[in-house]
Amino acid sequence: MDTLSELVRALRGLPGIGPKSAQRIAYHLLQHPKQRQKGLVLATALQQAMQTIQHCALCNNYTENTHCALCQNKTRDNQLLCVVETPADVQAIEQSHAYRGRYYVLMGKISPLDGIGPEDIAIDGLHRLIEQSEIKEIILALSPTVEGHTTGHFIRSRLKPYALTFTQLAQGIPTGGELEFLDANTIIQALRNRAEVC
Amino acid sequence: MDTLSELVRALRGLPGIGPKSAQRIAYHLLQHPKQRQKGLVLATALQQAMQTIQHCALCNNYTENTHCALCQNKTRDNQLLCVVETPADVQAIEQSHAYRGRYYVLMGKISPLDGIGPEDIAIDGLHRLIEQSEIKEIILALSPTVEGHTTGHFIRSRLKPYALTFTQLAQGIPTGGELEFLDANTIIQALRNRAEVC
Repeated sequence: MDTLSELVRALRGLPGIGPKSAQRIAYHLLQHPKQRQKGLVLATALQQAMQTIQHCALCNNYTENTHCALCQNKTRDNQLLCVVETPADVQAIEQSHAYRGRYYVLMGKISPLDGIGPEDIAIDGLHRLIEQSEIKEIILALSPTVEGHTTGHFIRSRLKPYALTFTQLAQGIPTGGELEFLDANTIIQALRNRAEVC
Repeated sequence: MDTLSELVRALRGLPGIGPKSAQRIAYHLLQHPKQRQKGLVLATALQQAMQTIQHCALCNNYTENTHCALCQNKTRDNQLLCVVETPADVQAIEQSHAYRGRYYVLMGKISPLDGIGPEDIAIDGLHRLIEQSEIKEIILALSPTVEGHTTGHFIRSRLKPYALTFTQLAQGIPTGGELEFLDANTIIQALRNRAEVC
């Protein structure tokens, strides 16, 4: 196989990149010396990331150090722990600037239909973190799906021995969400959790 | 900047990849050792392609050799030359299996609005190719736009000294194209070029 086809095939391995996009990206990178330079920068970034990024010994998020930047940050609230499914969730919550506690990343959720059991998510690290720290409240910031609920339930039962308060994110209508396009369950939750207007 | 952010930034440089997709791709590649291996394969393919791919000395298409596989193919019709704008066009025509002649890739089209003049497309290589070969007919397989027409016109005027027949791809309704969704110009061309039913 020639070099160009190799590149197109490797690009097709990326999520969300079909054969047409892969070809378009390959041609784009080859077009000008400046774009070739970009391609080489990407190659180096890929090698660097694939070889050096590991899991943070505390929160299980991705980092190239033993502890990630968030866990090294001394100004975060050590009594509050937000448990999320993925590193992308950490980023979304951080972008809201509404949370100053710590995180734990499960790297997945329990999903029997996909063959993912409790042993496949990083629950041991969560145990360790709680034993070593002064955490009082755990916010279960999991997806409002059957899998998310199962995962939350399992975590609560496993962490029962510790004196912890468990909370979960409020459920209701999202900002800007138009009622007519929301699913019935969201409306049920929004009605159930309705708050007095003050 | 940390390694993960570097990777996300480099991915964002690709066409069609926004910040969300870049993040998703980075996390996907890091998730499992198998996917990390894929990331490393992509890095190598990128380096290889950026450093070795050049333009074919005959048809101007991308290749890592002096002459591309199509130009090296002795079974192609040497009297027929299809002039296209991009390497992707060559691939599209090859996939139709309806053409057995040779190609010339302009790597662009004349577009005064984008500041691309006749000197910016690879017209000299086309001259050289025609002088060295036995080409009799030139198929102008250019896009049916103002830019494509301008480019075709320019090529015809520049190649006037040679005894060549110029043709262009037929214009009409595409297979599966529903009349109600076609633009007026396509319908005008389809009516003008209508053929007797036999």
